[in-house]
Amino acid sequence: MSAALRVGIAGLGTVGAGVVKIVQEQAALLQARSGRSIEVTAVSARSKEKERGIDLSNVAWVDDAAALAARDDVDVVVEVIGGHEGVAKQLCSDALSNGKHVVTANKALVAHHAKGLCQLANDNNVSLWFEASTAGGTPIISMIREGLTANNFSQVAGILNGTCNFILTTMEKTGRDYEDVLQEADDLGYLEADPSLDIDGIDTAHKLAILSGLCFGHVPSLEPLPCLGIRHITLDDIRYAKELGYRIKLLGMASKTPDGVQQEVAPYLVPLTSPMANVDASFNAIELLGDQVGRIYLEGKGAGPGPTASAVVADLVGIARGLDIPTLNYRDASLQAEPFVKQAADITYSYYLRLNVVNRAGVLAEATNILKEAGASMKDVSQHAGEEGEPAQIIFITHKASDAAIRDALAKLEAMDSVLQAPQHIRIAS
Amino acid sequence: MSAALRVGIAGLGTVGAGVVKIVQEQAALLQARSGRSIEVTAVSARSKEKERGIDLSNVAWVDDAAALAARDDVDVVVEVIGGHEGVAKQLCSDALSNGKHVVTANKALVAHHAKGLCQLANDNNVSLWFEASTAGGTPIISMIREGLTANNFSQVAGILNGTCNFILTTMEKTGRDYEDVLQEADDLGYLEADPSLDIDGIDTAHKLAILSGLCFGHVPSLEPLPCLGIRHITLDDIRYAKELGYRIKLLGMASKTPDGVQQEVAPYLVPLTSPMANVDASFNAIELLGDQVGRIYLEGKGAGPGPTASAVVADLVGIARGLDIPTLNYRDASLQAEPFVKQAADITYSYYLRLNVVNRAGVLAEATNILKEAGASMKDVSQHAGEEGEPAQIIFITHKASDAAIRDALAKLEAMDSVLQAPQHIRIAS
Repeated sequence: MSAALRVGIAGLGTVGAGVVKIVQEQAALLQARSGRSIEVTAVSARSKEKERGIDLSNVAWVDDAAALAARDDVDVVVEVIGGHEGVAKQLCSDALSNGKHVVTANKALVAHHAKGLCQLANDNNVSLWFEASTAGGTPIISMIREGLTANNFSQVAGILNGTCNFILTTMEKTGRDYEDVLQEADDLGYLEADPSLDIDGIDTAHKLAILSGLCFGHVPSLEPLPCLGIRHITLDDIRYAKELGYRIKLLGMASKTPDGVQQEVAPYLVPLTSPMANVDASFNAIELLGDQVGRIYLEGKGAGPGPTASAVVADLVGIARGLDIPTLNYRDASLQAEPFVKQAADITYSYYLRLNVVNRAGVLAEATNILKEAGASMKDVSQHAGEEGEPAQIIFITHKASDAAIRDALAKLEAMDSVLQAPQHIRIAS
Repeated sequence: MSAALRVGIAGLGTVGAGVVKIVQEQAALLQARSGRSIEVTAVSARSKEKERGIDLSNVAWVDDAAALAARDDVDVVVEVIGGHEGVAKQLCSDALSNGKHVVTANKALVAHHAKGLCQLANDNNVSLWFEASTAGGTPIISMIREGLTANNFSQVAGILNGTCNFILTTMEKTGRDYEDVLQEADDLGYLEADPSLDIDGIDTAHKLAILSGLCFGHVPSLEPLPCLGIRHITLDDIRYAKELGYRIKLLGMASKTPDGVQQEVAPYLVPLTSPMANVDASFNAIELLGDQVGRIYLEGKGAGPGPTASAVVADLVGIARGLDIPTLNYRDASLQAEPFVKQAADITYSYYLRLNVVNRAGVLAEATNILKEAGASMKDVSQHAGEEGEPAQIIFITHKASDAAIRDALAKLEAMDSVLQAPQHIRIAS
């Protein structure tokens, strides 16, 4: 029997405490599966006194998280502090430099600094693991790096932020508006300290950058990665989408095109018949298209102490087993500099358009004509009149159109006298 | 750079030829991901002359597959012959004994002989891989053995046979009856040489035994594993189920109970709101319940040359990377002898019951009373009268009842004068 794998944990929030709990309570199971015992030997957090429901009596307490990187009784540092600069980055860099493996749940850190961290890991013959960084408990990183290695991928798309998904599904179920449900999410503790990370799609972008890097063989990059959140989605949009057979979901999507890899975060109308449309509340889901395997779909809880700690501990078992898997799915020497493209010319979408208009004759005909001339012709239309004299809403579904065509159409629609505000436009996932 | 991993392939059907194709055409990708080149050095199949669309000019042809196990130019034997005795078993045993890794797509072989084969692999310090054996292209084996190692599982359930799923979904979509669609499946080449393996659930049982073993820490076992297929499912059942908000799916399901692990293959009514209900045609799907991660759901193509070869090649990459993962998810010394239970007392289900009855007054009341007295009381009922003087069908949905209660009720219902044949009974998945 090999010596125990000794773990130091930086951060004892719900995830860090969850990791301690699993390692202690499932010690026999983990040993049976990995052939080695796994022990938490040191921890660090802000408050030593806080009650966390875990037994730290045989665990060293370290006031300064950075000190974990230098301890002789630590083989692996688990970083669950968060933030892509400051303590988290310093700790991970130092730990790798000191020849310790690192397991992190920190998507921002990996999305911003994968290259430097991988280099450090390689130089010091240790490994960097980050299953928990993306889609919580779903083992999507392991699935791409191991189960699907025979495939060239053409697309990876996912619902990667449980908070946005909670807001959108709750708006639909309760008929309450965005601001109201956002407040509920905040009350439930679902929002990041900076809510913009969730609702403006930045958290989704971090996770997408990681998945895109693993699938397409490049260092995760947030540039270019156009990013649109869900602030502009109205209850009307959600209702109209449903009447048309769709549900609105915030998706991160990366696609391989002849010009390069296109990455983007945006809301989409997803057909109700697609499994992705039925992903509820706090769940995440990822769909991959591989040239050999075809479509693969994975769904699981995107956050929470249990699921996230499950992913961290799976990485610890991998390290305990001595697995040597390329951090970014390619041996570094051969990591490709796959080019990026901001807007691939050959990707076209159907669009959902909502126009708030003055309720008078001729508006529909004029708008339809604009769409046709711009090359984004109408496939379906419905008009929702308000009260007498009130504005009406026109909902168009377009045939597939290029980004250029739809931008042209939107500018001309907005310029119409009878159009009262910038038209809403949301892509339709096919 | 390490030396190439040299592969000998036994069987050049669509899967074997697919493996050759991926290894040759994606050579650069596989080398970039695994850090080693992977080469097919020898193959064996029945006919050397058959045109398979692959280039075998630099590959040794071996007339007798068994000889692959002894070749110096083979590090890994890929067995895609099939059948759990005879050549396939002998080849795998000999290869492991000779210190060669084995990759197999053969579920029957693993379900029947995992113990002996694992022992041989251990004794000879090589490994046995079988991702392709279960659910085709879905990396479910890797997911259980690696991504979810932190979890104690309480249940694994899946749609594991694409042929049955094709038959059931096609019956619903086209309104054609079982025999007619079975013939279509045969014409399309979807049926095993012995169709009973598909339609009587035996293939599902093989796959379930493997998943159950990996999840619950026991050697895969087909005993006890009660197994019911889909021959008895009628078009009426499919229609009534849909009216009630369900779709009928053949599921393999293994559950951990206080008494032991219960394994079973049977058709179930699955709620239309569940992703499993919407798994189409040739796709497979697996749902796992883990104590840390909660519900995890994976869906992908269950068969076909691309998906199956994708799984075989992923195993080859794992071997090329030198990964040392316990074959049955537990280091052998600690593999548990988890007990089995044939019928756990505390597992209860709601049931769909269909009674074909003489169309006369009092029948419904009598049947309802029998259900109540047996302890399987009625939750919902509908009556579908035929033409004047023709038999009617009564559809009951029961409250949750034990296996004993439902058997008691069925016996008494069948004994009713006005009941024309043995009542149909199908469990409802919750």
